[in-house]
Formats: sequence, C-alpha cells, structure tokens
Amino acid sequence: MDMLWNGWGDPAKAAPLPDSVTGLLRDLLGVTPRSTPALGLEDIRLPAPTVGPAALKALAAAVGGEEHVRTDAESRIRHTRGKSTPDLLRIREGDVADVPQAVVLPAGHDEVLAVLRACAAHGLAVVPFGGGTSVVGGLAPQRSAFVALDLRRMNGLLDLDPVSRTAVLQPGLRAPEAEALLAGHGFTLGHFPQSFEWATIGGFAAARSSGQASAGYGRFDEMVLGLTLATPEGTIETGRAPRSAAGPDLRQLILGSEGAFGVITSVTVRIRPLPETRLYEGWRFGSFEEGVTALRRLAQDGPRPTVLRLSDETETLIGLAQPDAIGAGSAPGDAGCLAITGYEGTAEDTAHRRERAAAVLTDCGGTPAGAEPGERWAHGRYSAPYLRDALLDVGAFAETLETAAFWSRVPGLYTAVRTALTDTLTRAGTPPLVMCHISHVYENGASLYFTVVSAQGEDPVAHWTPAKHAANEAVLAAGGTISHHHGVGTDHRDWYVREAGPLGVSALRAVKRRLDPEGLLNPGVLLPTD
Amino acid sequence: MDMLWNGWGDPAKAAPLPDSVTGLLRDLLGVTPRSTPALGLEDIRLPAPTVGPAALKALAAAVGGEEHVRTDAESRIRHTRGKSTPDLLRIREGDVADVPQAVVLPAGHDEVLAVLRACAAHGLAVVPFGGGTSVVGGLAPQRSAFVALDLRRMNGLLDLDPVSRTAVLQPGLRAPEAEALLAGHGFTLGHFPQSFEWATIGGFAAARSSGQASAGYGRFDEMVLGLTLATPEGTIETGRAPRSAAGPDLRQLILGSEGAFGVITSVTVRIRPLPETRLYEGWRFGSFEEGVTALRRLAQDGPRPTVLRLSDETETLIGLAQPDAIGAGSAPGDAGCLAITGYEGTAEDTAHRRERAAAVLTDCGGTPAGAEPGERWAHGRYSAPYLRDALLDVGAFAETLETAAFWSRVPGLYTAVRTALTDTLTRAGTPPLVMCHISHVYENGASLYFTVVSAQGEDPVAHWTPAKHAANEAVLAAGGTISHHHGVGTDHRDWYVREAGPLGVSALRAVKRRLDPEGLLNPGVLLPTD
Repeated sequence: MDMLWNGWGDPAKAAPLPDSVTGLLRDLLGVTPRSTPALGLEDIRLPAPTVGPAALKALAAAVGGEEHVRTDAESRIRHTRGKSTPDLLRIREGDVADVPQAVVLPAGHDEVLAVLRACAAHGLAVVPFGGGTSVVGGLAPQRSAFVALDLRRMNGLLDLDPVSRTAVLQPGLRAPEAEALLAGHGFTLGHFPQSFEWATIGGFAAARSSGQASAGYGRFDEMVLGLTLATPEGTIETGRAPRSAAGPDLRQLILGSEGAFGVITSVTVRIRPLPETRLYEGWRFGSFEEGVTALRRLAQDGPRPTVLRLSDETETLIGLAQPDAIGAGSAPGDAGCLAITGYEGTAEDTAHRRERAAAVLTDCGGTPAGAEPGERWAHGRYSAPYLRDALLDVGAFAETLETAAFWSRVPGLYTAVRTALTDTLTRAGTPPLVMCHISHVYENGASLYFTVVSAQGEDPVAHWTPAKHAANEAVLAAGGTISHHHGVGTDHRDWYVREAGPLGVSALRAVKRRLDPEGLLNPGVLLPTD
Repeated sequence: MDMLWNGWGDPAKAAPLPDSVTGLLRDLLGVTPRSTPALGLEDIRLPAPTVGPAALKALAAAVGGEEHVRTDAESRIRHTRGKSTPDLLRIREGDVADVPQAVVLPAGHDEVLAVLRACAAHGLAVVPFGGGTSVVGGLAPQRSAFVALDLRRMNGLLDLDPVSRTAVLQPGLRAPEAEALLAGHGFTLGHFPQSFEWATIGGFAAARSSGQASAGYGRFDEMVLGLTLATPEGTIETGRAPRSAAGPDLRQLILGSEGAFGVITSVTVRIRPLPETRLYEGWRFGSFEEGVTALRRLAQDGPRPTVLRLSDETETLIGLAQPDAIGAGSAPGDAGCLAITGYEGTAEDTAHRRERAAAVLTDCGGTPAGAEPGERWAHGRYSAPYLRDALLDVGAFAETLETAAFWSRVPGLYTAVRTALTDTLTRAGTPPLVMCHISHVYENGASLYFTVVSAQGEDPVAHWTPAKHAANEAVLAAGGTISHHHGVGTDHRDWYVREAGPLGVSALRAVKRRLDPEGLLNPGVLLPTD
C-alpha cells in the first residue's frame, strides 16, 4: 500500500476532527475553513521528464528491467518531497517543482552501485528514498535532473545471530515489516518513532531517527552495529565489533549522512528479546519545571523506564499527549503536566523498575494518574500526523520542530523557542498555540519537541517560514542542537552549518568529495553545494 | 613526577619478582637472566637536534617563553616512543631512532594553534604527547623532524555543570588528577584503565580508551559529549547536546583520530556521583566457555555489574588475574576460570544488582569465591605494567594485545589468536605462555585481552614481530577488530587499513588532508603517509 500522496499514512485511517475541536480552533485561533478545494492526484500538472531514452535504458539495465524504472506521473508525484507541513501544503496546491525525473527501484547493493554508475554517466543526481517521511526537506535536492532511488525492493532480513543478538536488515524494510520479521525469531528492534508505520531502516540510519521508547531501547544510531554504504566510488563496510579503538568510528560518519555520502544498503542492528510485559501509565506534575526535574532524576539515577515523556501545561491542557482523545472530552481541561512512563521487559524487571520509578516520581512531586493515560497514549502513539491532516483540512496550520540540549540549558531553550514561535506568528497575524513535550532523555540532557497550531492565514508557508527561522535562531542562541531526531535536510542546513562550524563542515565536504566527486548524491541536502 | 624513562610508572613502586616465579619462568619457559647490563639514561647517545634557532624561537614565541621549549637530552629521551614492550626493549638498548627534536609545552588552545603554525612555517611534524603510554607505536611518527607537543601544562578542570552532570577537562590532565578534581565536587569520571596512573584525558579520547569499569561507566568514547580540536587549518568545536540528528557525529570522527587530525584541547565528559559503595568479588567457573556464557547473560539481560572480567584457565592458573598475588602462593594453582564482579553505586543499587547477578552467575554454573579475589584484583589493578618491567629485568619477554568481536565469534577468535601466538613463538624457539581475559562486555560482544610471556631469546623484538603479525592476521581472519582499546598507532596501521577498507581509509585521508594539508600531524600514525 502506498502512503497518501498529499497527506499522511493510510487513507483508511483518516478521521475528521470533532465539531468541538473545530469550534475551539475557530474561537481560540481564528481558524476558518479553507476556501479552495483540494486538488486530486489527476489534477496535478507535471513537467515532462527531461531524462532521455539512453539514460532510461541505462537505469533499466542497472535494475534488471524497465519495469523497475518508473516515469509515470503518479510515481513521480508520490516521490516529490517529504511530509513536512510545507511539503503537504505545496503538493496540495499542485506545486511539483521538486519532482524527480524518474523513480528507480534497485533490488540489491550491486544494483544500487550500477544505478550510481548510470546516473554518473548521464548527469543525473540521486535521491535515496525510503518511506518518504522526511519533514526537513531531505528529499528536495538542489538539482532538477534527479532520480528517486526507491529502496522498497530491498526489504529483507538478511541474517540474524541469536547469540550475538544482531540482525542484518535491508534499508527498504519498513519498521512494521522489520518488527514482524524479527518477532518471528522472538526478537524486537524496539524502534518506534511517530513515523513507525511508514519509515524505513535505511531512513532511520541516514537521518539518526529516535523512537518513542528510546529511554529503554536507545536511539536508532545507538542500535546500529554495522553499515554497508554504496557510493559512486565504491563500497564501505563497517562494524566488525560492537565497539573498537580502530580509528574514528566510520559508522558514526555514515549515520546522519542523509544520502549525501552514499546509499545505505544494509544495516546491522542490535536486537532484543520480545518483551514479556508492556505497561504504560500516567503521572501528573504541577508544572513543567517540576516534571523536568523528575525526568532528569530518572535519566540520571534510574531506574530508567522504557518510555518516558512529559507534556508541558499547554499540551496537557489541549490533550495532545493523547492525540486520540482530542475532542473526546476526557483528557482536555486537566491542569498541570502529564507524564507518560512505560515499562517493557521481563515481568520481574518491569515490576521492579516500575516500583522504584514510582518512588522517585512521587518524591519529585508527581501524582499517579493510573493506566488510562498510558494506554491512551500507546493507542494514539502514531496518530499525530493523521491529526495534522485533519487540521490542515479545516484550515488550521499545524507543524512540529524539535531540538535537544544539556539539562541546564533545557529551561532557557524551552522559553526561547516558544517565544520565537509565538512572537513571529502573532506578528504575522496568526497567533499560535505552542505546545511542547520531552520525549527523549539522556543522563546529560533531553529533547524538546514543539507543536505549533494556528490559523493558516493568507499564505501559510509564507507565514511559517519566518517563524521556523526564528525558532532555528533561538535554538542556536540558547545552546540547543538544530535537530534531535528529524535531521538536517535542506530546511535546517544553513543553521546546521553554523552549528557544526566552517571547519567541521569543510571536513565533511572533503568526505563527500572523495565518495561522490561529481556531487550526484542528494545535492544540497545536509551540506551546501559548491 | 616523571614516568620511568625505560619502564613503567613510579620507580618507587618497582618490585622484583619472587624467586619462586623466576624459577617457574626458567623451568617452564627456559627464561635465563639477561647477559647485558641495562643502560642508564646518561649512557644514551642522542643525535644533535636538527631544529634550527629560528624554529626554536618561533616555538618559544608560540608557548610564551623558551622555558617551555626543551631540547635537552633527558626531555627528548623521555618523549621517545611509548610503553609497548618493543618500545622498552629498544630504549633499554639505547635505540633512540624515534627521538623528537624538541619538546614543546603549550598552556592552552591558542598556544597549540600557534605551535601548529610555527611548525608549519618550519617544516616540523607534531606528535601530541599526553601520558606517553601508547603501546601501539602512536608516538613514533614516520618523520624524523618532529616535535613532541607535551600537554602537561593543560591540566585544568575548566567547567563543571552539576545539573547536566558534565565537566570540561583539559587534555593534559592525568586520570588521577581528573578524579581528584571531580571528587572535590562529589563526582567521578569512572574511567580506570590499566594506564590510569599516567595516561591523560586527551590520550583517552584520541585513542578510544576503555577502562576496567566499562561495564558500569562505559568506554571513554561513550563518556565524551564534546571536544575541541586544534588543527593547522583552525578549530573544530563539537557537542551542543548529548545526542543530535544534526548530521554525522563529528565527535566520533575526532575520537580515535590519534593526533592525526589535530590536537584535542578540551574534552567535555559526562560525570557521575561518587559511588557510596564499592564492592568486588570473585566467581569460579569450570571452563572459559562456561564463564563466557555467564558474562554474556549479564551483558545482555542484566543486571550489569560495574566491573566484569573473566580470566581463562591459563591466566587463572598463573594467577595473573591478581598480579599482586603472583608468587604469593595463594592464588596460583586454582583450577577453572576466575571471574571478577564489581559493583559501584548507591548502597541500595549495588545490593540489588549484586543479588540478582549472583543468581544469574549461579544459574550459569558459577561458584562464589568470596570477596578476597575481588579485593586482591582491585588492589593490583594497575600493577601489571610494573610486573612486566620485573619480567623484562629477569630475561623474560612479556607483552599484551587485545581485540573484540561479536559474541558468536568470540570462541573462534580466542582460539585463532592463541594458536597464532603459540605457533609463531614456538617455531622461533621461545615457546610462550599465552593467557587471556575478557575485561569489557557489551550486549553484542566482548573484548579479548591476551598476555604473552616467553623467554626473550636472542633478539626479542625480532622474535615478537612475526608473532604479533600472525596475531593480527588471526584477528582479521576470525572477524575481530584490530584493537578494542589500545588504538592503531603505527603497529596496527596496515591491518587497520584492511579492516576499514580502502574507501573508508580514503575518506579519512580526505579529512586529514583538509585539516592538515601539509601532513604535519603524527605522520604515519593511524593513516599511511602519501
């Protein structure tokens, strides 16, 4: 099944907003219904592909037949950009400026190498395409003559070592498929980002994804033990041991490279036994500050829950901590801040961690809210992007952004980003609701994930761009990183360059020039073009 | 205090071998006393420095005065090579082929940059020098015109954030000094490698050190949150958050770069509260295989002790698991394999982990051996290099090497390396005793640390070189990494190049060329020279 071309996910899961929410949006934010009807896929006008027959023939030869090279309009539109809100707004208006010339589907590492050779021979850039879920412009290169390298045919479990607890996965495996394959052997990867239903193993690696259970299972980049990278100059294979002192860690150079250094063609990951028990529950805190202190104590001194999240007052009030409950009338209206704690593992281990964590949370001023908020969060954990579609449909604007910092900087970063977003959008005439949660904790710091909802106004992308830029400036000024788990893409690139510094970026460009001397790979994504 | 110039550590801690051990070495390995008397420092003949007065003047200007530029024989000899057994044997014979032209002592980041500029202007290579404890040729560049950049004046605690639990340390801080400074604030770094008494923070980062308590505190590269790197082309600063999705992790490109990309001038580390409790104890297993399974279970399913080690049958028999006890008559002679488990933390946490770990170890066939072996191990944890000096003094050869692999490859790797060492040295007429232990465990694999003792024979370095090469080949063939925590240096370089592969190495060389276009930094260390 394909993802909805102009929205998120499985069209069958779309759900309109309840009237109560529509009313709230109107009263609170001045949201008014869209005046222009949405375009259908068949209404989109595409420029004819500029890729010639010789190039198409070479691509077909690289991937074992012309059936694996697609130039039809639907395929091209479905590989245009990713799933940020500006991406959706643009495609809904028929803006296909970033459309690929063709979609190429290789079946394995050698075919990827062959595609790269064919593209080099015909002057085509290459955008690796997994689930297509980038929200940072990672699929919109700064070259119009490019092909989308769709990895969906590379979706196998290549090896599983139950003793070492490692598995070798192909990059085009979607997360649910990967979990199903591993579950057949009694294992789980434990990577459950909000994009879980659609995103792929290769994409997780390329963009340093982090899942909702990162407190227990770690970030995706912490799960990766080895990678194979296909580049225009050949192959890099990494990972002979879990840890090594043999030079710089090449895995960590490939992780986060966002397709700019090569195409990830296999990923060796650590796997864990399927948990006997999964248990999620809610806790209430009087303030975000109090809750942050509680999360920090658990992250630093333990015990570490598997899932650990905290919504700020606004997010708690609106009920976005449990997207499925919005408008249901039960969650909204609660005061204070809701935290979700989750425990997965053996029955003994989860019981022990839960008991000790409860003591810490209570000591930090928390009040147990029982299993219901936890179960509701778990039920709605992948719902937020569907909710966004519904919001866009009724004329609201909704977007998210995220960052991370050391603990002592978290309060200042929280205030700085909220203020930047609120001030900019208010000045533009679309005062927003800004909500925030912490969803990833470390001994030394945490992530902050912001959700912004406002009226769309005259031109929602034009309204949003300065607000997003102001938020990026606030992130850098307050000592945060420009992305905790969405990546750099093209949207964050200019701020990333400032974060990494000119010499650091220059070192990465030297790597890119060595691996991709003609600059074919995702030009302008991650690193500026020459 | 300076380290012994021709051996290890504090001369006051040197202890001759008991007669019983000397007898054992003679009877078992044919070790006979050295026939040549050892040279004194004053007997070493040095070539006159080739560095001219203009260069010395520029260096003095870079570091705030000529008192911080040393060209005397003692300083130069003390900065010649590191502390591998071949290093010690060569310097004891007066071989100073790798002597620096001068020793330069900068006081801070800007002075390091100034030294790099001065060296570029005068065609001098630069070898960053921390504790001088490299055992892989990391201080022996492939250029004779070089200066040793001794970082001892950069030994401060620059910042400590008790909320985020981070500290900024200068690179020349020795580990005990760092621990003392942190203890003043109630914190510990928790990094206790065998080189603890002498090695420095910068060296730990540059060579990806791993300490004896890595099961609890992590490897050094896992403790590092930020780094500052001074290069001939400027400065790189990394680490705005504990984790980030903003591109490849530049920290992991600097960690393990062994001075070939730049000079690490500050390291931001995670710190932890000083433990309330420290408790070490012994466990016995019938075989190495049985013990390996027990360690794997703890590493994969927990609870994780802070220290977790397992000696094979030979090491247990000889008693090297507790170096201080060798010849004392109590430990040697025990059958099976000795494991050491250690717990550090709060009283409650250590008690809980210890109790649950004991259940796992018992379930895996282990028998508790009480506190004595643990305490004895803890007392002698930094003694092995002193023991090596005593062995060299009586005409024995003693050296170590280490690797790591995924769990399923550990048994094959163990056998392959043991066989390679035994066969090669036996063929050379100096049959060895080969001992091994696991001292670092991960969910997905473990390290193997080998100790080799034999007679020195005619020319011990000539005997050892083919044995070491055979071990390196065995490591690669059996799927291990060429180093788990000693690093690459010059000794492992050719095998490292094969492990990383030509394109991976080429990417790192591209980084080096960008940061060090004239190839001044540690030429030939880590990466081959052009």
